[in-house]
Amino acid sequence: MGMKEWNFKGNKDLKIASSFSIKGVIDDVKRNLNPSDQRPVIPLSIGDPSLFPCFRTSKVAEDAVVDALRSAKNNGYAPKGGVLQARRSLAEHLSSNLPYKLSPDDVYVTLGAKQAIEVVLSALKRPGANILLPKPGYPAYEALATLYQLEIRHFDLLQDRGWEVDLNGVEKLADDKTVAIVIINPGNPCGNIFTHNHLQKIAETARKLGILVISDEAYANLTFESNSFVPMGIFANIAPVLTFGSLSKKWMVPGWRIGWISRNDPNGIFEDHGIVDCINRSLSYNSEASTFIQAALPQILENTPEDFFVKTVGIMRKDGEMCYEWLKEIPCFTCLQKPQASFFLMVKLDLSQLQGINDDMEFCSKLAKEESVILLPGFVLGMKNWVRVTFGIEPSALEEGLKRLKAFCQRHASKH
Amino acid sequence: MGMKEWNFKGNKDLKIASSFSIKGVIDDVKRNLNPSDQRPVIPLSIGDPSLFPCFRTSKVAEDAVVDALRSAKNNGYAPKGGVLQARRSLAEHLSSNLPYKLSPDDVYVTLGAKQAIEVVLSALKRPGANILLPKPGYPAYEALATLYQLEIRHFDLLQDRGWEVDLNGVEKLADDKTVAIVIINPGNPCGNIFTHNHLQKIAETARKLGILVISDEAYANLTFESNSFVPMGIFANIAPVLTFGSLSKKWMVPGWRIGWISRNDPNGIFEDHGIVDCINRSLSYNSEASTFIQAALPQILENTPEDFFVKTVGIMRKDGEMCYEWLKEIPCFTCLQKPQASFFLMVKLDLSQLQGINDDMEFCSKLAKEESVILLPGFVLGMKNWVRVTFGIEPSALEEGLKRLKAFCQRHASKH
Repeated sequence: MGMKEWNFKGNKDLKIASSFSIKGVIDDVKRNLNPSDQRPVIPLSIGDPSLFPCFRTSKVAEDAVVDALRSAKNNGYAPKGGVLQARRSLAEHLSSNLPYKLSPDDVYVTLGAKQAIEVVLSALKRPGANILLPKPGYPAYEALATLYQLEIRHFDLLQDRGWEVDLNGVEKLADDKTVAIVIINPGNPCGNIFTHNHLQKIAETARKLGILVISDEAYANLTFESNSFVPMGIFANIAPVLTFGSLSKKWMVPGWRIGWISRNDPNGIFEDHGIVDCINRSLSYNSEASTFIQAALPQILENTPEDFFVKTVGIMRKDGEMCYEWLKEIPCFTCLQKPQASFFLMVKLDLSQLQGINDDMEFCSKLAKEESVILLPGFVLGMKNWVRVTFGIEPSALEEGLKRLKAFCQRHASKH
Repeated sequence: MGMKEWNFKGNKDLKIASSFSIKGVIDDVKRNLNPSDQRPVIPLSIGDPSLFPCFRTSKVAEDAVVDALRSAKNNGYAPKGGVLQARRSLAEHLSSNLPYKLSPDDVYVTLGAKQAIEVVLSALKRPGANILLPKPGYPAYEALATLYQLEIRHFDLLQDRGWEVDLNGVEKLADDKTVAIVIINPGNPCGNIFTHNHLQKIAETARKLGILVISDEAYANLTFESNSFVPMGIFANIAPVLTFGSLSKKWMVPGWRIGWISRNDPNGIFEDHGIVDCINRSLSYNSEASTFIQAALPQILENTPEDFFVKTVGIMRKDGEMCYEWLKEIPCFTCLQKPQASFFLMVKLDLSQLQGINDDMEFCSKLAKEESVILLPGFVLGMKNWVRVTFGIEPSALEEGLKRLKAFCQRHASKH
């Protein structure tokens, strides 16, 4: 008699969900690196400035975490939704830019902004529901919407209008099964900022369509002109807003895994529609962020010296300018606008000006092989034959990377 | 013209998934606490010894985390599956009890054991598939199986056989759609340990049924007789095993959120059946554990002095003995066996010996109200009219809690 076959097999759905993965595509690009190239690899691909000495986080933040750990009071499980003192200080911090006060109950501590996406999309899942996502956008939304069986409908960001939302397109896409629109402001991957006026129009459109706004503000305050960032929450009296934020980019500590959701909803619409209950339920089976890092939040939020932000944002601004200046001189690239925020730029490839390169993936693969420079192919962001350039690295490394990129494009320029 | 209705509504499925929540039930019990009782509340309900000074974690572990943070090398995103040095040291650590060597690729760092459950159950999801879970068990399995639409089939643990798996029952429950059996060894909530012989029989049953074994070993080494714990992985040549573990219980740091999955599969069956691919895909959209805590793992695993474990396990053993001695003297309780591991005991309530108490929830609610002692009602573990007693607290607090519990039972004893 033969042995019984094994009954188990991998879940096919995960293939689709995980296909929306920046890390996965970067891994594919990196496989082209030439190990005999002695030059350092220059990563213009992933948003993690923490790896570079000039972007080291504030000593105040480090000390706060050490103190919270050494106290031995924060080694246990955190309560659902987060440690109270963390929620309280986040509520205070976020309220400073709003026309109303958030309470600690309006704020949930999450494992970076990624878990915020997971929690909210799981709370919104319903048979037949759809969600409006930006193109280009951030693929974790596509991955988690797929996982939670929310139909994805993409609206365009308009390059020639500074990457504003195509609001006419949004109205055409939406129907009675549309539950939410996602905006990422400041923009990943476009490095743009939405104006007060544009945000108000988004809120009015959402009100008209009967949908909530998810405002991903992970890059809030990583902006290159002061006071240019406006939180979506100020329009929450028009349409209710769930805002996502995190320590990752402002404090340059993505590996600490601290993010948050805030409920901006002075009219209590989320409560009435069961969203608050579902967020709490979703949090009840999700893992919490490390307790002692949560417990450090009040110190981090209240005591980080302004110097730290002035310095890091200053370097980032210069990086962005340098990047823009180099890229606009490269003939096969179109890059209309200097970055205003974040550490990303989207660049359109003109393949007719390149020889032997047929798409964005091939461009990035050959660039990795020949120049040990990593860029992100645009297709993973829904933008075939574009590339995303990350400039949030040490300025000297950025300059070296841009030189190599220029040399690569010159070498592959078509001969007519 | 009226305003458009809001389209969104909370996801109903979350109600079912989140109903399997120990925290939720404990919150319900705590609502009965009498605020005018001046005595401290004694939590014999949740498994978190870290709150008590006698169970403070090792200085070596604290120092390792501080060093990893202060190095400023570990503030960035961790790679999928975990930081390499952490995976390497875990593989080494776990191999010491196995007849074969694990490689770093066989180990994944997770956010506590909870994310291990999530990752594996999401990898196993398939239309119509079912999974075998122990009764009593750990409700996170029920919550996540519900979320991933795996049909749950419960097998019994047999109290009169030291809480061994009812293997005849398992064979009757399983069919061709059964993909896995979950065992929790050492046992939560029963405080038992499976013998070498019993584990081998479980493996043989799994092989016969064509299913994999998920062995939750979160309490490994929190055992009261040395060498009594046998890892399921030693039988992986019979049926492939996914083992879950964590720092939480051995190092008393559940709030650090560090756990792991190890693939015990010398015959490569998981690879062949797409499980490895799916685990990787699932990890690609899940959040990682904090990078600097991961980076501290080699120091923690290799350098924590044996003294620390001798001390903490010694206190826990005495706590377990004290708890058992008290409980067996209380007439309305049945508690057949002294705990051998973990910090839990399951106790059966004889309601006929109590007046005015109709079930386990009422027992726990009145106990909270009158004595400020918190126990977990058994129904949430599938054991109506049982209670779970956690003894992993400061010995003096445990004694006080047991005194109050005894007084409560005496006061409510039926008068015949």
